[in-house]
Amino acid sequence: MSKWIYAGSFDPVTKGHLDIIKRAAHLNQDIIVAVLDNINKDALFSIDERVAMLKKATCDIEGITIKTFDGLLMGFIVKEGAKALVRGLRTISDFDYEFRMAALNKCLNDKVETIFIMAGTEFSYISSSSVKEIGLLGGNISMMVPQCIADEIYNKFKGDKQ
Amino acid sequence: MSKWIYAGSFDPVTKGHLDIIKRAAHLNQDIIVAVLDNINKDALFSIDERVAMLKKATCDIEGITIKTFDGLLMGFIVKEGAKALVRGLRTISDFDYEFRMAALNKCLNDKVETIFIMAGTEFSYISSSSVKEIGLLGGNISMMVPQCIADEIYNKFKGDKQ
Amino acid sequence: MSKWIYAGSFDPVTKGHLDIIKRAAHLNQDIIVAVLDNINKDALFSIDERVAMLKKATCDIEGITIKTFDGLLMGFIVKEGAKALVRGLRTISDFDYEFRMAALNKCLNDKVETIFIMAGTEFSYISSSSVKEIGLLGGNISMMVPQCIADEIYNKFKGDKQ
Amino acid sequence: MSKWIYAGSFDPVTKGHLDIIKRAAHLNQDIIVAVLDNINKDALFSIDERVAMLKKATCDIEGITIKTFDGLLMGFIVKEGAKALVRGLRTISDFDYEFRMAALNKCLNDKVETIFIMAGTEFSYISSSSVKEIGLLGGNISMMVPQCIADEIYNKFKGDKQ
Amino acid sequence: MSKWIYAGSFDPVTKGHLDIIKRAAHLNQDIIVAVLDNINKDALFSIDERVAMLKKATCDIEGITIKTFDGLLMGFIVKEGAKALVRGLRTISDFDYEFRMAALNKCLNDKVETIFIMAGTEFSYISSSSVKEIGLLGGNISMMVPQCIADEIYNKFKGDKQ
Amino acid sequence: MSKWIYAGSFDPVTKGHLDIIKRAAHLNQDIIVAVLDNINKDALFSIDERVAMLKKATCDIEGITIKTFDGLLMGFIVKEGAKALVRGLRTISDFDYEFRMAALNKCLNDKVETIFIMAGTEFSYISSSSVKEIGLLGGNISMMVPQCIADEIYNKFKGDKQ
Repeated sequence: MSKWIYAGSFDPVTKGHLDIIKRAAHLNQDIIVAVLDNINKDALFSIDERVAMLKKATCDIEGITIKTFDGLLMGFIVKEGAKALVRGLRTISDFDYEFRMAALNKCLNDKVETIFIMAGTEFSYISSSSVKEIGLLGGNISMMVPQCIADEIYNKFKGDKQ
Repeated sequence: MSKWIYAGSFDPVTKGHLDIIKRAAHLNQDIIVAVLDNINKDALFSIDERVAMLKKATCDIEGITIKTFDGLLMGFIVKEGAKALVRGLRTISDFDYEFRMAALNKCLNDKVETIFIMAGTEFSYISSSSVKEIGLLGGNISMMVPQCIADEIYNKFKGDKQ
Repeated sequence: MSKWIYAGSFDPVTKGHLDIIKRAAHLNQDIIVAVLDNINKDALFSIDERVAMLKKATCDIEGITIKTFDGLLMGFIVKEGAKALVRGLRTISDFDYEFRMAALNKCLNDKVETIFIMAGTEFSYISSSSVKEIGLLGGNISMMVPQCIADEIYNKFKGDKQ
Repeated sequence: MSKWIYAGSFDPVTKGHLDIIKRAAHLNQDIIVAVLDNINKDALFSIDERVAMLKKATCDIEGITIKTFDGLLMGFIVKEGAKALVRGLRTISDFDYEFRMAALNKCLNDKVETIFIMAGTEFSYISSSSVKEIGLLGGNISMMVPQCIADEIYNKFKGDKQ
Repeated sequence: MSKWIYAGSFDPVTKGHLDIIKRAAHLNQDIIVAVLDNINKDALFSIDERVAMLKKATCDIEGITIKTFDGLLMGFIVKEGAKALVRGLRTISDFDYEFRMAALNKCLNDKVETIFIMAGTEFSYISSSSVKEIGLLGGNISMMVPQCIADEIYNKFKGDKQ
Repeated sequence: MSKWIYAGSFDPVTKGHLDIIKRAAHLNQDIIVAVLDNINKDALFSIDERVAMLKKATCDIEGITIKTFDGLLMGFIVKEGAKALVRGLRTISDFDYEFRMAALNKCLNDKVETIFIMAGTEFSYISSSSVKEIGLLGGNISMMVPQCIADEIYNKFKGDKQ
């Protein structure tokens, strides 16, 4: 079986992302987790920090590789020779965006499938941006990210305020 | 019965907001209207102006108190000892956002309910941002905000242009 | 505070219904659970069986009364002098139907509000009809209904086959 | 890699179904196409006819097996030792139903994933029921089903009228 | 300009239908209101009664003709030489159904457009089936259908009970 | 028949826009394509460039006129004496936004209808912003815009990088 790619900014990785990574690896032991190196000033964590957090959080999941990419995602997929792009589908989420992206990617390359996997309903409200919003205000984020990631987020905000 | 909280930026208050405030107060004579003091440069009206407009527009509604808050909304709800967060549900609106927020708040504190009340269908298209867009361009906003608020909006834009 | 009404067929009552009843009673200690006596041949359980199951499943919830009604729901609401109709909103559900009903009820009587309360995400997939479908095929329904109700459902299907 | 199951009534198989079967087999050369033997009087074609049409329409697709099942789908999935249930996601379709089923199946057995694959947009309006409706009225269905299937549908309706 | 067709069962015609007919006729003085003669035992009113009610309710709207059809709607559209099918879009309604039908009709004949017109928000909750449900139970339907139609519905139900 | 207006930023015009313009002109030979002169620094192309591209791409479509407008769209519609605003409805798109705008415009002027026309499903994923995103990254955009427009986009990005 060929590679599948699960791509995102992971700024930071959440329990929702980890749920999808585990489910994908359970289905297919050849998953590339692709971190977007977007040189985006709005990102809270640098590309190196994001990769390091992902490595720490996925250390016990077999069958995955973490890589970075920039530019067009479809270009990266083709370069890696992957057959599918994995997306997590939350029961509460922006379907329109997902379907538009899937249709667009199908148009760019009809040989690459978009595979949607449903995250557990207990993760349906989690997003990286709400993690950051709540963490910035000092709220409890431990149900949204692994504890080791939560600590890094609080440290990051503490650092920003100094 | 405990307090309910109806929170927002109210930049400015609209007839849609007022419809929800009236319906909530009709159900429960202990509503706190909580105005977000977000120190947001994008706000058209200052926190003091927004509170003053709300007071003027709600002067004939019994059972409500107007307060301001900053930081995490859930923190304010707990500090006030409120049992529920009231949200207006428009037949045309961003359900995904509402449900994600409700699930997130349930996760932050499962003892606080989110209560959705349906606004009258005649208010379903109104939002503070469309009031500002149309007011800025000199369009008619008198069906979207009370007359006294409409005047303040036109004055604000006139002032901005001088 | 006035009465609120939570109405349905409850054929049979599910953990999703019970979650909403508990949340409503937590908000307001005067809830009428209204069971529709629709004389509908498609119902699996008789009106008496449905009421009995509800009583058993809600025996530890304070502030609720169980009643039956037939005819127009709005007529029952007015007769009881209730101020609001409570509806459970699942993150996965038929919103269109809910909003159409709420708008219709507002039109029949603008003094009665429809209040939507969000069920826990872990109950979002549960419906009485899926309980019956899976129970009929002998599948495991113990995560969807209380154990005592599950037993009655299996007994009912066993009886039907004899 | 383990088996994936693609289940349905296939009454009759459409170009939309065939698109999903091809895409699934392209991703994973071990797909069981499972035909529901529901003993349903509303079905137009018998279980044998539906299997025969599927065999004819998929004769050039490698990596698939056609089987029948009755009872609970999850029971069949477990009996076959499959790891995933494949569902076609149309840009125009009943998402609520799909997500409720996926959450229900996750609840019945959390080790089995539901994988959604997007059909080509040109197939988004096709359903077995519209094929039958239009075929019954003598309309053109050749863009919705393979020609050999179209002929069988017209013959079936001709037979019914005699 | 060519003909437009507005089709339905009109069992019975509602204020929502009349709003769309008026708006369509305002845009284009050549509208055919096409009543489906479906020989459906579930219809409350006969095809003759439905046509008669439509005639009465539209007597003051210029630019429309009332006709009946059976069989495939697209066949009727082509026979009449119409260029477009008009559909009312309610802010609360079954979009999926509408878009699937529009895509299906585009596929059957790409020269015929589906034109969606938005009904007034005050009509968004009205449907023929809720008119019948509420009328059967003796509820007030005068805000959903013209008075003369309301009387016929009550008479029909009275007749059914005798 | 009166004028219809099809408005947008057209930054740049896509095959999706052109599909709607053709369908609108097929229905009614008096379409104004209105280009928003928003003095928006985020626009990739100047108002003159956008008009020029539109003229080039629509040179073989009869019954249309290209104009520019600024300020409130409804003001422009009234000034032109148009009876309807045309909107393209994609099977994958932001319905909420569309319906809110339509209801808002109906409120600003109830004599002007919003007419939704469905674009071909093969255009459903196309948007000006995805054209720009993919073009910027050097991806293939020739299935989303006419070839002559694609060249101008690549040239624009080349120029920006020099």
